[in-house]
Amino acid sequence: MKRIVLLRHGESLWNRENRFTGWTDVDLTDRGEAEAARAAELLRTEGFRFGCAFASYLKRAVRTLDIVLDGLDRDWIPVRKSWRLNEKHYGALQGLDKAETAAQYGEEQVLLWRRSYDTAPEPLAAEDPRNPRHDVRYRDVPAAELPCTESLRDTVARALPYWHCEILPALTRCDDVLVVAHGNSLRGIVKHLKGLSDEEIVRLNIPTAAPWVFEFDEGLSLRRDYLPGDTEQLAARMAETAGVGTRK
Amino acid sequence: MKRIVLLRHGESLWNRENRFTGWTDVDLTDRGEAEAARAAELLRTEGFRFGCAFASYLKRAVRTLDIVLDGLDRDWIPVRKSWRLNEKHYGALQGLDKAETAAQYGEEQVLLWRRSYDTAPEPLAAEDPRNPRHDVRYRDVPAAELPCTESLRDTVARALPYWHCEILPALTRCDDVLVVAHGNSLRGIVKHLKGLSDEEIVRLNIPTAAPWVFEFDEGLSLRRDYLPGDTEQLAARMAETAGVGTRK
Repeated sequence: MKRIVLLRHGESLWNRENRFTGWTDVDLTDRGEAEAARAAELLRTEGFRFGCAFASYLKRAVRTLDIVLDGLDRDWIPVRKSWRLNEKHYGALQGLDKAETAAQYGEEQVLLWRRSYDTAPEPLAAEDPRNPRHDVRYRDVPAAELPCTESLRDTVARALPYWHCEILPALTRCDDVLVVAHGNSLRGIVKHLKGLSDEEIVRLNIPTAAPWVFEFDEGLSLRRDYLPGDTEQLAARMAETAGVGTRK
Repeated sequence: MKRIVLLRHGESLWNRENRFTGWTDVDLTDRGEAEAARAAELLRTEGFRFGCAFASYLKRAVRTLDIVLDGLDRDWIPVRKSWRLNEKHYGALQGLDKAETAAQYGEEQVLLWRRSYDTAPEPLAAEDPRNPRHDVRYRDVPAAELPCTESLRDTVARALPYWHCEILPALTRCDDVLVVAHGNSLRGIVKHLKGLSDEEIVRLNIPTAAPWVFEFDEGLSLRRDYLPGDTEQLAARMAETAGVGTRK
């Protein structure tokens, strides 16, 4: 049996402060670190032996991965990182408080930015220091591919090539593969794997640091998926994640 | 200018307990973590911007690297790991207390094992659970290459091919490269770079978590090397490291 585990990073500073994060490189909170350690415990109990792992270029994903691998005594496995697994780029909203943004643009507009499949926030200007073209970590990404804002459709479109070219083929070398990324890049992968519609994926909330297991047969067709752990607690956390989206 | 920084991992549990560690996968102590964080501060002050990094397969090196990269906000750079950067394999001595070993085999024999260039401790038996052939992380290493004991000469001989094939060529892609490894695998690299004799390298003690900087010209010839930071404190720490070798 072949398995890929998708894991959203633990709570970050801006999750807690309720600000639009996107590609901003904020760190985990203490709670986020503890969540990652609990995810490692759960994965250990379930018998996962990861042969390789993937993360985004963002600190909150890399540190979550480091904590999980250390908890599993798998510090030594190969890890690959890619900007294609980054969170959705929130354009000019990055760094803004979600409640303030709602007061300024109206609750409805903010919900549209956050929850529609096709609407992207205002792009970052070329000279804006937040524009990723000024960040050395993206210097090898062709300018035409580097976003300065994204709709969820855009995020899905740039995450899926990495799934097809790097992550799924890793199952030919390893039986268990771990992917630590973000709410929206993981939505793209889940949408593809489960054949969800644009509307369905927008309503799906992936809780932080809850491993989501996808089992494949030897031909790498999906057989089943499940979230290990306390089902009731998970349902509560998925509701909590959804709640953040409408909180004022 | 091109730079490679060699860094020995921070203090590990068995450094403190004064046991032969070798390939045993022991963790950092709290002090070891703090040492790694201080190394990151020093490297930040000195203006290092690492483009890629290398570590051994052992947790104490990987975790030191993770802490340093996080302290430098370089979590995102590519990291490669190799068994060739592992500590010297201490054979049947692995796990034994150094003072007890001295009482059993005599101080002179232990000093020979620890400080001669050519003498290897007794090998681990094939069926010994400590033998690396039983460890999944080494399953891709050809049996003929996988040690069950090593002299320092053996360690140098298996570390240097990785230096030549992977680490030095990384300077063609990045200006600053970081290598986190162990007292003896780093001795091999330093011996090569500085043209030290077998006797000289045996007497050289590399302190934990003290970055050692090697500068190269564009043709990748070594120009100079230095240890940044407080020179007096470093001298004291190198003496301290040497002291561990003869402590009863």
